[in-house]
Parts: sequence; structure tokens; C-alpha cells
Amino acid sequence: MIQLQDYIRDIKDFPKPGVLFKDITPLLANSEASALCLEGLLSLVEDQKIDKVVGIESRGFFFGTLLAQKLNAGFVPIRKSGKLPYSTIKEPYSLEYGIDVLEMHDDAIKKGDRVLLHDDVLATGGTAKAACKLIEQLGGIVVQCNFIMEIEFLKGAQKLDQYELRPLISY
Amino acid sequence: MIQLQDYIRDIKDFPKPGVLFKDITPLLANSEASALCLEGLLSLVEDQKIDKVVGIESRGFFFGTLLAQKLNAGFVPIRKSGKLPYSTIKEPYSLEYGIDVLEMHDDAIKKGDRVLLHDDVLATGGTAKAACKLIEQLGGIVVQCNFIMEIEFLKGAQKLDQYELRPLISY
Repeated sequence: MIQLQDYIRDIKDFPKPGVLFKDITPLLANSEASALCLEGLLSLVEDQKIDKVVGIESRGFFFGTLLAQKLNAGFVPIRKSGKLPYSTIKEPYSLEYGIDVLEMHDDAIKKGDRVLLHDDVLATGGTAKAACKLIEQLGGIVVQCNFIMEIEFLKGAQKLDQYELRPLISY
Repeated sequence: MIQLQDYIRDIKDFPKPGVLFKDITPLLANSEASALCLEGLLSLVEDQKIDKVVGIESRGFFFGTLLAQKLNAGFVPIRKSGKLPYSTIKEPYSLEYGIDVLEMHDDAIKKGDRVLLHDDVLATGGTAKAACKLIEQLGGIVVQCNFIMEIEFLKGAQKLDQYELRPLISY
């Protein structure tokens, strides 16, 4: 029996000293492990109707597109500043030093769309919170935020306590 | 009958003056159009055995992961410099001004792996060429390079004439 954790690799001091990075590339490289991960993420959604899956750049794109396809939903990318070509709405989020901005196309979500937000990791919750605000700014309903994993000690769940959070694995 | 072209949006002067950017976000946002695009890309692969699908950051990740799942293959991301956390191999590629570097994890491809390279657009062919070199450096066999679209006047096909190139749409 495959354990997803066996396909998630710890990288010390990436992207900077003191950070233990969770690398999902071994999971992506193995088709059985990826299929199991996708099945797990889908089971978190249960039978809820989803119109759009929103994935956060870049690691949220991998399983975000797969989830959208399985749910017969559209896929919407949220990207860092300056990457999206069409007219966008913007939302700042905090980094350790200073702030950065997330963007979404302003025609990406319709009022009343039921949205699944997906990213690989829930850490401090800053990017997920900004992503939820972008979805709501266009009148979308955040049905669930799902993640491959949650890093519990970073307390991202506290920042997102008004949302339905579903991580597949907790560290 | 859905026409994929109707879901690809022209954006003038992005990312810089004089460039006509082909925006696939309307295609991603529509589940029927996305399914049709995926079906088309799969038909280009025919019945060839594929061990790994390699997608180029970031727009190659969308249909790259979907292709990998449908082909029961692993997925491997190629990323810009500094983004991959584990040990990497590097390959420079030319930009209009200066050069940049693409990276791939050095354990991502095994010797003899049959590889499908995917990206959204074949333009000048610079990134695809660098990606092929990375795959071959690890002993992988580039079975096919497939793309949602080719921008013919940029002559990327000339730079990649030793590879099997399959664009779904030509402009």
C-alpha cells in the first residue's frame, strides 16, 4: 500500500535558512502516488457541486487542473504580480519581509460560482487568505480550501477560520 | 461544436510592446473546451508508450499534469532558475536580451525513460530546445514535443528539427 508521505521529500533550508521545505516532485513523478493523491483530494470535496477550481501559482496548478477535470469544473489560475495577461483584480499578502501581490483575471469567476480553492501546502495561510478574497471580490463562494498538506505549527488554519479547510495530510 | 480557437484570447503588447500574446485562460476556465483540448493532445501521442511527461513552467503545467494522468506516466516540472528545491541540472536559453536558465531535478528522469515534452506554445523554440537537452542529459528519450499551438512565423520548428513536433493548432 502506497503512503503519500513516502513521496514527499523534506528539503532543509529551502528557500532560505531555517525552512524545512516539503517537496512534492517525487509524488508527481510517480503515477500511482499521484493517482492516490488525486483520489484523496477528490474525497475531501465529497459530492459538493463545484463550478471552478482555483489553483495558486505554481504548485497549486498541478493537482488544481486534475481536480477541475475530475469535477467537470473550469480551472482558474491565481498568479504572482504581472504574470496574467488580461485585466486583473489584485490582493496583497504578507511575506516575512514586506508584501507581495496575487492577481486573478477579472472575468475568471462569475457571481454565485461555487469555488474550490486548491494549493499544495497550507503554511501561514497568507496566500490562501488573499486568494479567498479575490474569489469573493468577484462574487464567488469559497466552498472549500483543500491542500495536499498542512504544516500545523504555522497556524494557517487560524487565519482562515471562516472557511472550510481540508488538508489531506497534517505535519 | 466547440472550436478551441474561440477559447484562446489575443492580448496585444503582452508581456511587452509588439508581442501578441495567446491567452489560454478562457480555455482552462471552460471544462468542455479543456476536455476537448486534452483529447486532442492525447490523440497526437497516438499509442506511444510514455514514462514521463515533462511540462515547462508555468503554462506547461496545466495540460502537462493532465496528459501524465491520462497516460499513466509520471509528471516532471522544468522550472526557472532557483525554484526547484532539490539537486538540479541546468541549461541556459536565449531571451531577447540576455540569457536565462531552466532547471530540472537530477533524479527526475531515468536513463531510457520515454518522455513526452509539453508546453502551451511553440514560439521561438528556445525553451523547448533547452528542455530537450535537460531530458537527454539524464538519458531520457524525447518521444514527442507537443504543444497546444505553434506560432509559425517565429520558426521554432527549425530550431527543433531533430525532434517530433506536434502542435494541435497552428497560427
